[in-house]
Amino acid sequence: MKLGIVGSGKVGSALGAWAAKAGYQVAFTSRNESHARDAAQHAGHSAKALPLRELIDESRLILLTLPYAEVKKALGPMREHLGRKTLVDVTNPVTPDYKSLALGHTTSGAEEIARLFLDANIVKAFNAVFAEVYVSQNPKIGGQTISIFFAGDDVEAKERVGELIERMGFDPVDAGPLQNARYLEPLSLLNIHLGRVLGFGTHIGLALLRDGRP
Amino acid sequence: MKLGIVGSGKVGSALGAWAAKAGYQVAFTSRNESHARDAAQHAGHSAKALPLRELIDESRLILLTLPYAEVKKALGPMREHLGRKTLVDVTNPVTPDYKSLALGHTTSGAEEIARLFLDANIVKAFNAVFAEVYVSQNPKIGGQTISIFFAGDDVEAKERVGELIERMGFDPVDAGPLQNARYLEPLSLLNIHLGRVLGFGTHIGLALLRDGRP
Repeated sequence: MKLGIVGSGKVGSALGAWAAKAGYQVAFTSRNESHARDAAQHAGHSAKALPLRELIDESRLILLTLPYAEVKKALGPMREHLGRKTLVDVTNPVTPDYKSLALGHTTSGAEEIARLFLDANIVKAFNAVFAEVYVSQNPKIGGQTISIFFAGDDVEAKERVGELIERMGFDPVDAGPLQNARYLEPLSLLNIHLGRVLGFGTHIGLALLRDGRP
Repeated sequence: MKLGIVGSGKVGSALGAWAAKAGYQVAFTSRNESHARDAAQHAGHSAKALPLRELIDESRLILLTLPYAEVKKALGPMREHLGRKTLVDVTNPVTPDYKSLALGHTTSGAEEIARLFLDANIVKAFNAVFAEVYVSQNPKIGGQTISIFFAGDDVEAKERVGELIERMGFDPVDAGPLQNARYLEPLSLLNIHLGRVLGFGTHIGLALLRDGRP
C-alpha cells in the first residue's frame, strides 16, 4: 500500500517512519525539499522524497501533516489531482498560540453559566460519561479506571470537585480553566455518538493514559 | 461534606446515590418534588429531598444535573443565593436530537478541507496525539494501547485509515461521519493543554474503555 505524507515536519516525519516500518511504501513531500529527503532517509524501508504532484499521483492514501492554515495554499492548485484520493486530515485549526481552535469553537455551556452566576465558582465535570455508568457505581471498565475531566477557574472549588471524583473511585484529571469546557463538552458528544449511534453501548469511558501525575 | 443535586433525573439520581455511598451528605431537588423524594429514597445513607432554596443554603457543593436549557430559568431567581457556592456543571448544551452542540461548535477544519476538495475522501485521524508519541513508535503507555479516533464519510476510505492505525499498533476507533471532526479537533486542544500547560508532558494519550467492539 502506497502512503503519501504531505508535510515533513515532526508529525509527518514520525508518522511516515512508523508506517514505513509497518510495511507501507512511503513517500514524503515538503515545501522545503531537503526536509522531505531527511524524512525519507530517517524512515528508511525504501521511503522516498517526491514532488507534491508525483506524490499525489502515486499515493492512494495521503496524510496531511502540514499546518491547517497552509492546506489551501499548498493543495488548492492540486485540486483536480486529489479527486478520489483518500486524504487523512491530521491538522488542527489552532490559533497561533496553540491555546484554542481558530474556528468552530467560540464558547461553552459552562462559560455561559458562569456569566449567569458571576459570584459562584463553576466547575465543569461528569459531563461525558453515560448515566448508566453512574448507575452501576463501578468506575472501572475492563479493570481500567475511567478518567473524569474537570475544568474551572477557582482552585479551592476544583479541589472539592476533584475530591468528590476521587472518592467515587474515578480518576480525576484537572483539565485547566473553565474555558476548557469547550473541549470537554465535545467529549460528551463523542461519547454519545460512540455509545448510541456507533454501537459501543453505554458502558464506555475515556481514560487518560500517562506515566504519572503532574 | 454536604452535596446538593439540582435535577433528580437519571444522572442526578445516580451521581447522588454514589456520592452518598462515598460518605457525602446528599440532598436532592427537582421541579417535580416526587422525583427528588424518589432519588433520596433510592440513595439511602440519610439522603433527603429539599426545596431548591434550602438545598442551596445548605450545600457548599452543588451539582447541576438538569438540562442545560433549563439552568437559567430554574436557577436565575436564585442568583444571589448562589454567590460563593461551587456549582458543578454536569450539563451539555446539546441540540434536541442529542447529535450536536447547540452552541460554540459550528464547523471543523476537516469539514472545511472537505469543502475545498469535493471529490476527495477526507478522514480525520491522528490529530490528537503528540508527535513525540509517533516518534517513539510505541502505541502503548503503561501497558495500555492509545486509541486513535477517526471520522469520515466514505466507508472504504475509513477502512484504509483504520488499517493503517491498526498496523501501527494503535487501537482504531471509528468515530462516525466527518462532521464528528468537530468533536475530535477539541481532543487535540485538550491534549495540548494537558501535556504542555498542565504538566502531564507529551507522553500521554486517550484510551476508549469498553467491553468489546460494536
